[in-house]
Amino acid sequence: MKISARNQLKGTVSAVTNGAVNGVVAIDIGGSTVKADITMEAIKDLGLAEGVPAVAVIKASNVMFAVGAERVKGLSARNQLAGKVASVTKGAVNGHVVLELVGGNRIMGSVTNEAIEDLGLAEGAEALAVVKSTDVIVGVE
Amino acid sequence: MKISARNQLKGTVSAVTNGAVNGVVAIDIGGSTVKADITMEAIKDLGLAEGVPAVAVIKASNVMFAVGAERVKGLSARNQLAGKVASVTKGAVNGHVVLELVGGNRIMGSVTNEAIEDLGLAEGAEALAVVKSTDVIVGVE
Amino acid sequence: MKISARNQLKGTVSAVTNGAVNGVVAIDIGGSTVKADITMEAIKDLGLAEGVPAVAVIKASNVMFAVGAERVKGLSARNQLAGKVASVTKGAVNGHVVLELVGGNRIMGSVTNEAIEDLGLAEGAEALAVVKSTDVIVGVE
Repeated sequence: MKISARNQLKGTVSAVTNGAVNGVVAIDIGGSTVKADITMEAIKDLGLAEGVPAVAVIKASNVMFAVGAERVKGLSARNQLAGKVASVTKGAVNGHVVLELVGGNRIMGSVTNEAIEDLGLAEGAEALAVVKSTDVIVGVE
Repeated sequence: MKISARNQLKGTVSAVTNGAVNGVVAIDIGGSTVKADITMEAIKDLGLAEGVPAVAVIKASNVMFAVGAERVKGLSARNQLAGKVASVTKGAVNGHVVLELVGGNRIMGSVTNEAIEDLGLAEGAEALAVVKSTDVIVGVE
Repeated sequence: MKISARNQLKGTVSAVTNGAVNGVVAIDIGGSTVKADITMEAIKDLGLAEGVPAVAVIKASNVMFAVGAERVKGLSARNQLAGKVASVTKGAVNGHVVLELVGGNRIMGSVTNEAIEDLGLAEGAEALAVVKSTDVIVGVE
């Protein structure tokens, strides 16, 4: 299945934490780790375990941005991926920002134009893509 | 790619509304329509147009529930799918509710145990699965 | 309105910004403003305009937390609501944190236990509830 989610980061499962109904899967995407909070049913169904190749799937509207190269301290969002802004495209009220991550991956986020202006997001700027772990879907080939 | 998202509702694109950077795709899943607010890039990339077979992909954590059989009036969430509760599984703080939709599809939502109790969600109860259109990913085979 | 979303903050629309397919609605909830990025279809359908009473509906899984009383600078998330932690309930991998906002409202978030520990979220701690504007649903009576 080819899907609309703009972000599909390939990697390897580095850890799985089992809960009662939900669990957390950590995926090493090279240069950074992405954590996904998904159902235990999905973890079993997809056979997710340490060492399994997996893809972190993230919808552009679930990506936020923070300015700078340093992880934002004291923020509950587990995923903060450092990179440089590769492109900014503004629409009527929302715009798309593409970040080139340290490991070479790219991640696109859809945020308000207001945020783009407020943060001064422009080509070349250092920024972090911030994603809540419940907003990450996991795929296996 | 096999993905962790528990809800993958098959249907046919019934309408596409183009915007500047984002667009809205309506998918007729039989018995109801699901609207997805996705990037224009994805709409072009996947060749989404009226009549194209497509899948509405929804992560369980993006599904809310409302009590009753009637669409909740005055709510901005575009997707309200009517059905009957097929099962409820409680965890430590969150639980999973499965709804059998009018058209025969099933949709699973992950909500707080507090909400399950507060709404009296139990097997056989009439309920609506409520999903914001920005939380729907679109897939094509 | 009986819906599983744990957060339903009542207020009045203070501004509407129209876009091509999406728009941004600002709701003054008393003490703070919540911005919602929703479809233009919903804005028209609900008759959202300055002065209209409205409810900001936010699912607990879409709430993040930041430590401290100061707005996190350089973060694209438009909604950062200041308050004090009223309660923390841990589950197996996720927990629920309730924040009492400055204006008297309460907001509940579902985050990982790891984040709760990492941020030292405990009763009485000053914190901000952080919500992306695309994760806010708007309701009218």
